[in-house]
Amino acid sequence: MASTDYKEISAIARKRRAANIDAYFHVPKVDESTLPNNLVEYALKSEYYDASELDIIQSEALQILHNIKERKWTALEVAKAFCKASAFAQELTNCLTEVLYSEAMERAKYLDDYMANTGKTVGPLHGLPISLKDSFITAPHPSSIGLAHFANIPTTKDAVLVNILRSLGAVFYCKTNIPTAMMMMETNNNVWGECINPHHRKLSPGGSSGGEGALIAFRASPLGVGTDIGGSVRIPAGWCHLYGLKPSFGRFPVTGGQPSISGIELVLAVNGPMSRSLESLKLYCESVLSPTVAPWQFDHKCLPIPWRKDIIQPRGRKLRLGFIGNHDGLCHVHPPVQRALETTQKVLEAAGHEIVHWNPELHPVIVRTLVASFYDLGGTAISEVLQPYGEPVFPSMEGYSLAAKAELNMTQMRQRVLQRNLLQQQFLDDWNATATADKPPIDGIIMAISPWAAPRLGETQRNFYVGYTGVFNFLDFPACTFPVTFSDKALDPGRDMKAFHQLSDIDGRIQAEYDADFYHGAPVSLQLAGKRLEEEKVLEMVEIVADALKVANVK
Amino acid sequence: MASTDYKEISAIARKRRAANIDAYFHVPKVDESTLPNNLVEYALKSEYYDASELDIIQSEALQILHNIKERKWTALEVAKAFCKASAFAQELTNCLTEVLYSEAMERAKYLDDYMANTGKTVGPLHGLPISLKDSFITAPHPSSIGLAHFANIPTTKDAVLVNILRSLGAVFYCKTNIPTAMMMMETNNNVWGECINPHHRKLSPGGSSGGEGALIAFRASPLGVGTDIGGSVRIPAGWCHLYGLKPSFGRFPVTGGQPSISGIELVLAVNGPMSRSLESLKLYCESVLSPTVAPWQFDHKCLPIPWRKDIIQPRGRKLRLGFIGNHDGLCHVHPPVQRALETTQKVLEAAGHEIVHWNPELHPVIVRTLVASFYDLGGTAISEVLQPYGEPVFPSMEGYSLAAKAELNMTQMRQRVLQRNLLQQQFLDDWNATATADKPPIDGIIMAISPWAAPRLGETQRNFYVGYTGVFNFLDFPACTFPVTFSDKALDPGRDMKAFHQLSDIDGRIQAEYDADFYHGAPVSLQLAGKRLEEEKVLEMVEIVADALKVANVK
Repeated sequence: MASTDYKEISAIARKRRAANIDAYFHVPKVDESTLPNNLVEYALKSEYYDASELDIIQSEALQILHNIKERKWTALEVAKAFCKASAFAQELTNCLTEVLYSEAMERAKYLDDYMANTGKTVGPLHGLPISLKDSFITAPHPSSIGLAHFANIPTTKDAVLVNILRSLGAVFYCKTNIPTAMMMMETNNNVWGECINPHHRKLSPGGSSGGEGALIAFRASPLGVGTDIGGSVRIPAGWCHLYGLKPSFGRFPVTGGQPSISGIELVLAVNGPMSRSLESLKLYCESVLSPTVAPWQFDHKCLPIPWRKDIIQPRGRKLRLGFIGNHDGLCHVHPPVQRALETTQKVLEAAGHEIVHWNPELHPVIVRTLVASFYDLGGTAISEVLQPYGEPVFPSMEGYSLAAKAELNMTQMRQRVLQRNLLQQQFLDDWNATATADKPPIDGIIMAISPWAAPRLGETQRNFYVGYTGVFNFLDFPACTFPVTFSDKALDPGRDMKAFHQLSDIDGRIQAEYDADFYHGAPVSLQLAGKRLEEEKVLEMVEIVADALKVANVK
Repeated sequence: MASTDYKEISAIARKRRAANIDAYFHVPKVDESTLPNNLVEYALKSEYYDASELDIIQSEALQILHNIKERKWTALEVAKAFCKASAFAQELTNCLTEVLYSEAMERAKYLDDYMANTGKTVGPLHGLPISLKDSFITAPHPSSIGLAHFANIPTTKDAVLVNILRSLGAVFYCKTNIPTAMMMMETNNNVWGECINPHHRKLSPGGSSGGEGALIAFRASPLGVGTDIGGSVRIPAGWCHLYGLKPSFGRFPVTGGQPSISGIELVLAVNGPMSRSLESLKLYCESVLSPTVAPWQFDHKCLPIPWRKDIIQPRGRKLRLGFIGNHDGLCHVHPPVQRALETTQKVLEAAGHEIVHWNPELHPVIVRTLVASFYDLGGTAISEVLQPYGEPVFPSMEGYSLAAKAELNMTQMRQRVLQRNLLQQQFLDDWNATATADKPPIDGIIMAISPWAAPRLGETQRNFYVGYTGVFNFLDFPACTFPVTFSDKALDPGRDMKAFHQLSDIDGRIQAEYDADFYHGAPVSLQLAGKRLEEEKVLEMVEIVADALKVANVK
């Protein structure tokens, strides 16, 4: 063990964070006991912001870019407003790790000067504040990914994606909280502590991109970037009522990030945008994957597929969508999620789209293989970074410690790869088999993001279940979340547990934990998945679904 | 060990092959001692073929398709001519494994009937005979890949690529010889025996797609498909004076083939076309990757990137090409290969293209890592399939037996993946760094395919070196071979070995083995590599190079 222990490391890191905030903003200290559940509303109604700041932080990316371009706002004003909001978000939700206000202000001034001098923007994201999950390296700031092992170590080389976003005009102003090694589904770690959900402070914002989820939901970021290997973009996006895209591997540059378990290829981590606005996701994808940026020139893993438009042809045609009902073969959803599924199905059918039942028969074996692989393949890697500073292991990560003693050998590893390839191909074959004599295969699949709308803090330490999201990591299929409604104690009573047939022990425990009163107000979102590398089509389909929900006035 | 031994298995397989040929053709038995080195010329000048057959078998794919479409030839005539030629090729070079004449004739008749009845072709490859490396599964024929373990076992499901080629109109008529498990660079195995080079019968046709190389060079196939994990398309294509494309992984469907070492992902096997004609390679790529075929719909591993045209813009612009001289940091080339490099450089410069020296400083570590990985990762897999029937291990494969006792563990495996990723990214960075203030980075790299033009039979059992080709497998960069010239004892004297400074023991051994008289007439080819997934650009660049060589009258 190292001579320092994780608590000393943590103290240094937290002190740095506090100092970097205090240098710019005096955030009011609040008495937690007086806080309502909904911190989003609380913050917006507080006297922390002036009218101009409120205007800025409640704007979406396209509006911000427009107003900067039209010289209604300066990039500096925008940067300051989001820095200030993020300081408040940190105070109320603990969503930040590294604080980059100083360089954000400097960068914003540079952009303003550039526009004043040239009359032009530096790129399509000129002046847009973009928040980054802690794992994206912005040198020299540390990239702890929640581990004492990395917490105070300067970094040396920006991630390829960071360089690209900067070249497009983005302003980086903070990095966001994550769970230990990014391998939990809620956001807590021994360095920075626990992040909470601003929509309902007794709930988790999810993980591993949980700081992003909280920050964006809080109106302290218009657009953020997360990573996803088992649901880490979609779980926090869904639990924080956001759109969040998990792309297929290779669509976006990945080189230069801090990996959770490095060197594993059975399932590959990807990164993707998160926002309250679907338009912002599109803007991000179009900008990063434009033919002129061509990120595949700079990142070996990136595929030369520019962002394509108007994939669904003819425009306005009706979709065929696979639908998974109230369980995925292993675990039922809570009543609010079931209502969201039923509502969405009803709304889509009313709009003329066809809903096809998708039988999740392959899901259990995929989920079990995926989760076993996190442990089997990553056990030693995780244990190696946890041990030096004596970090306690969170309950939902105990599988890594156990697995480190029983690693796979090369033959078992090869068999695991073959099994994965067979399951991937079988899933694709099943998808194609939804074609009928006169209809093409389904366009996408709509399903829950997790059993919970958003679970109480600590719940996933007892009941860890990433099956709903992880299935698409295993398949390397893109999927995007979309907000549907909020839990409502009047509309979402608990199930009759005497009549409930559990599919597994964890299914029973999760369902028994539901409490309509406690969960009242929890955000409820769903996800829509497409086939491999169909990111554009997924966003187009989500737009169709979101429009249908809006037309039907679903809230 | 199984109750049968590999010799019995081999006898059954060879008997099947002979019977399937004898049912259709009476191939003249030849007295080996009377044969010239060049079997291509020998066969074409023999009385085995009639004029019409000679016309057919010497035509390239586009001409064949044209003549079938114009009803000058029937698909059956064409199929019969190539079946007959392949029977002769088998007799003289031992290039076949499974013989599919019966179904080829039936298929050709079906295509002729289809055209007679509908006035249409079934697709762009209507009636084109395509030869397949033994590893492509065409059920129910066995796919031995040179192993007794699989030699007489019927298969059940066609490979995805086979289905696609068939749907485009191809006629399959034979499968071609390979080395044991496809893991040697010449073609020999304990089931089917050794394949020889029809351009010079004392030389190897290369491997692992060596049967393809021999068959196509012999004029017994207009177009074949091979696979490549360390050079297995390019080595036989080069040594047989052909064009052969090794694409990046994911460009072409791979699902459903017989793998050599299954479940390894550090370096991935790909498949690609081989032909005497570059036009035939283009035809193949365009047909298989057309937006209407869209193979990515059927194969999870296939990327949705349709074949693109006219990539090099503006048309006719001059190229900047990296050039590796007479060694790659580990191994010098033989004098004929050096002459081919010098000639090509001279011709390209004369045509106005820019030649930039490419420093192969990363090549040695890449090559060492690649070759070590074949053994480290595949040792157990290879040993498991060799042992049951007591197959002797070829000298160049002894590394697998040794490695099977010392497999990598998961941590070492992860480190190997990380090392590969770093080297891939470094190579790309180096490539981009060839840009100057006023010039873009190089377009491609031209280099040798192996130290030899084509080596004597058995040479690579003593001196196994796949560094020239393997580097691009490790990088997942596309590369295509092109024929340049033939070894000439007058033009290619041996080096002064007293003045020669060897880079390694194997370098010294390989160079010492050169014999200008013996190698007279050996085909000499080079390869041109592009960046990942730039297959179209690679073929366009090869066309420019081939045209320049033609204009300069290089033979």
